[in-house]
Amino acid sequence: MTSSDHSNYQIHKNQIQLTDGTVYETYRTAGTLCSHDDEFNFKKGIHPTRQDWIQKRIAEGSQNHSQMYFAKRGILTDEMRYVALREGMDPEFVLNEIKIGRAIIPSNINHPELEPMIIGKKFLVKINANIGNSALGSSIQEEVEKLRWALHWGADTVMDLSTGKNIHETREWIIRNSPVPIGTVPLYQALEKVKGKAEDLNIDVFLETLEEQASQGVDYFTIHAGVLEAYVPLTKKRITGIVSRGGSIMARWCIHHKKENFLYEHFGRINQVMKKYGVSYSLGDGLRPGCIADANDDAQFAELKTLGELTKKAWEEDIQVMVEGPGHVPLHLIEENMRLQNEICSEAPFYTLGPLVTDIAPGYDHITSAIGATVIAWHGTAMLCYVTPKEHLGLPNKEDVKAGVIAYKIAAHAADVAKQHPGAQKRDDLLSKARFEFRWKDQFALSLDPELAERYHDETLPQDGMKKAHFCSMCGPHFCSMHLTQELRKEEAKSSG
Amino acid sequence: MTSSDHSNYQIHKNQIQLTDGTVYETYRTAGTLCSHDDEFNFKKGIHPTRQDWIQKRIAEGSQNHSQMYFAKRGILTDEMRYVALREGMDPEFVLNEIKIGRAIIPSNINHPELEPMIIGKKFLVKINANIGNSALGSSIQEEVEKLRWALHWGADTVMDLSTGKNIHETREWIIRNSPVPIGTVPLYQALEKVKGKAEDLNIDVFLETLEEQASQGVDYFTIHAGVLEAYVPLTKKRITGIVSRGGSIMARWCIHHKKENFLYEHFGRINQVMKKYGVSYSLGDGLRPGCIADANDDAQFAELKTLGELTKKAWEEDIQVMVEGPGHVPLHLIEENMRLQNEICSEAPFYTLGPLVTDIAPGYDHITSAIGATVIAWHGTAMLCYVTPKEHLGLPNKEDVKAGVIAYKIAAHAADVAKQHPGAQKRDDLLSKARFEFRWKDQFALSLDPELAERYHDETLPQDGMKKAHFCSMCGPHFCSMHLTQELRKEEAKSSG
Ligand code: SF4
Ligand code: SF4
Repeated sequence: MTSSDHSNYQIHKNQIQLTDGTVYETYRTAGTLCSHDDEFNFKKGIHPTRQDWIQKRIAEGSQNHSQMYFAKRGILTDEMRYVALREGMDPEFVLNEIKIGRAIIPSNINHPELEPMIIGKKFLVKINANIGNSALGSSIQEEVEKLRWALHWGADTVMDLSTGKNIHETREWIIRNSPVPIGTVPLYQALEKVKGKAEDLNIDVFLETLEEQASQGVDYFTIHAGVLEAYVPLTKKRITGIVSRGGSIMARWCIHHKKENFLYEHFGRINQVMKKYGVSYSLGDGLRPGCIADANDDAQFAELKTLGELTKKAWEEDIQVMVEGPGHVPLHLIEENMRLQNEICSEAPFYTLGPLVTDIAPGYDHITSAIGATVIAWHGTAMLCYVTPKEHLGLPNKEDVKAGVIAYKIAAHAADVAKQHPGAQKRDDLLSKARFEFRWKDQFALSLDPELAERYHDETLPQDGMKKAHFCSMCGPHFCSMHLTQELRKEEAKSSG
Repeated sequence: MTSSDHSNYQIHKNQIQLTDGTVYETYRTAGTLCSHDDEFNFKKGIHPTRQDWIQKRIAEGSQNHSQMYFAKRGILTDEMRYVALREGMDPEFVLNEIKIGRAIIPSNINHPELEPMIIGKKFLVKINANIGNSALGSSIQEEVEKLRWALHWGADTVMDLSTGKNIHETREWIIRNSPVPIGTVPLYQALEKVKGKAEDLNIDVFLETLEEQASQGVDYFTIHAGVLEAYVPLTKKRITGIVSRGGSIMARWCIHHKKENFLYEHFGRINQVMKKYGVSYSLGDGLRPGCIADANDDAQFAELKTLGELTKKAWEEDIQVMVEGPGHVPLHLIEENMRLQNEICSEAPFYTLGPLVTDIAPGYDHITSAIGATVIAWHGTAMLCYVTPKEHLGLPNKEDVKAGVIAYKIAAHAADVAKQHPGAQKRDDLLSKARFEFRWKDQFALSLDPELAERYHDETLPQDGMKKAHFCSMCGPHFCSMHLTQELRKEEAKSSG
């Protein structure tokens, strides 16, 4: 494997062929059917080498490479056209959503491998998978394999959160092999540069790191500029304090120096790097709650207000922004998070981590958090950061990545359906019809995880003929209710005929 | 193992001991901490042999053994006292909830092995696990093992849905070994008695089956008396028709005979058996939707109206009632289900199957349904019937039973927390505190699945010393945000000191 060979990591399956020959196209590998009519004309053939689009804009002398910059000037970019095709939306609609800041297309000019995608509440809900090593585990190869695996199951963006060895090289491999946007938290590498001493951080080492990562092609940066000095004492009464790594690093810096967060103070300088490469902000929620007892507290909402202020500052320079959100929130407090974020951040896309709705199930936090994620996405969250079964317990491996991605495809899709997004329910209905007609192969093909569905079915009835049987082992032949309904319909036809 | 030896199936762990010696008592094995103060005085010692209570009432000449019968006469039964202790509620409150029909204690006089429990929206949300063989699999031993396993992980009631061989004997083993209420769908066995021909069913063979099962000690019966002849045509436009086994059998009978459902016509005779043994109704939703496209349709709500009517008929004879609900419902249509059931069935406990919020994830329907289950329980559903990963694909095995039960413990508990049920959040807070203080053993002990949590942690850091380490492999020692917060607090203490 060489780092320029990324053919393995292209979307390798974007069609579902049913047994009658009908073909349905999917947004991504294991994703949602995104066409809202059968005429949807997204074709493999039009995949870009984005390089050409970028070169053209550079030749034209553009200094700001943010999609918002073009949108505000009424310029419809190739990226906008591309996402419009993917989502089955009107390109002008896409342009307008980007112009008003309600959607973003994370797209660094140095990431030509990217197949552009859009994040915003008027589009399909997206999911992010976190990968990356820690000091205690994983190799470059394992991380690239996690990337491939996350994409196979349908991750829409991937964050490389490496904090261990070979941070730069790991990231290079990941970006070069990724057709989806890559996000990072540059603070982690900056901290490594000052040998792990938070108090030795400063804006210069940070900007140097930012430049390094942006020039590699990172599409969005988590920046913890909202953790203000004055907010740190608000976390004192909490059960779990500050659980964001970036948040706890910046809090430490502020308290040590008795100074304001240098990311906040020098936000304007950060803006310059963002514009130059077309990187998008993911404004970090460094003070998000780490347990349900700490949800929706003063610290969390104080920071949110600052994130709203920073959103506007970024928009003034035409830089795309999304805003990160919690975390751990009991069900009855979820809606308030979405409502406040909407108001305070003027509808900039919300990007939440879960939230987990209970703390009592370590080992199952892909489930505790998928519940909260579905509900918050229904209320308008644009992208959901997955949580794996290893959350709080250890570094996720490949199988954990799959479990997290699938749980979040379910959450995102269930929210699309609940939002009555055009065409979202189509895949459900096709699958239900296949189920009722005992087209087992079609039922499997339309599943988020066709292999698993087939394996489960075959545990008890592996024989080939059973793929057309009018029952399965759950109820058995005499009690299959769907079979009984079909008999009933025959009976009704007879008695009315 | 003999059928009278059920000592293995008692609640074998109802205490969580923390490393500092503190002990917390749990409602059930893997259940919710139900005390709302530390003085909670539910002790192992008071477990009943319920036999004495029952004998006393029989000696007093009672003809109706329903708890509602006693409640309406202001008589506080031992069962009511027992559940009051379990839930940490006032006994008079329990009595009143039963009197007005808002809660039930399913408790057949021939099930003395029962440790009484209560189902109602003012109490902790309960979960049911379905077990039982089909014509295509499983032995008595496997089913008893599934029962034991379901109880180990925290099922509050269990339904034996056997439709295969040895129905009577399987049920006997299950009831004799169960400290939790057992429910059945008597129609399945009645159908076996007429050799699988729905049209040969009649009220006599049904009542004979009812008497047989009630005398064995079944605590609640699903009765599909709401599937009226006139409602069957309403299912014609559906994608998946009638997906309840009982519903499709009764629909077939009605259409064949062009007659009204005999369960509806002879409801009064069924009442007699219910009273005699103190069995509770679980009014079956034979016309529940089988896919999200069919949710909240005319067929479903027509039947619900009839279930409301039957609820009142049962209450007139002091018989306890819960009402079954869907099934498959997209998130935005869930609340309407709860609201209508509340209105139409005068707050009789709602007992729903999930609902699944999307149909595209066979193999993961414990997750798709736990999402809907959490939301509907938050709105007031009193008991959730679990769904396993095998749903729609085959008969669940032991591992599927565990996966289903855990997903539903999460759903029920998250709903208790969202309802702000007294004390519900205590276990979350204890676990979060243990997490923040790096008391790894306590974090595991407080988990729904301590073994799995520990195994996941130990995958990367198995060494004994790591059980006190101030980090895990997820972020590693330099990036552990909780460790950083603790350092921060030291720093704060220093600079203010
Ligand atoms: S036997 Fe039951 S689970 Fe299997 S196809 Fe028929 S209705 Fe569905
Ligand atoms: S390393 Fe990360 S996941 Fe592990 S205990 Fe620390 S904060 Fe929690």
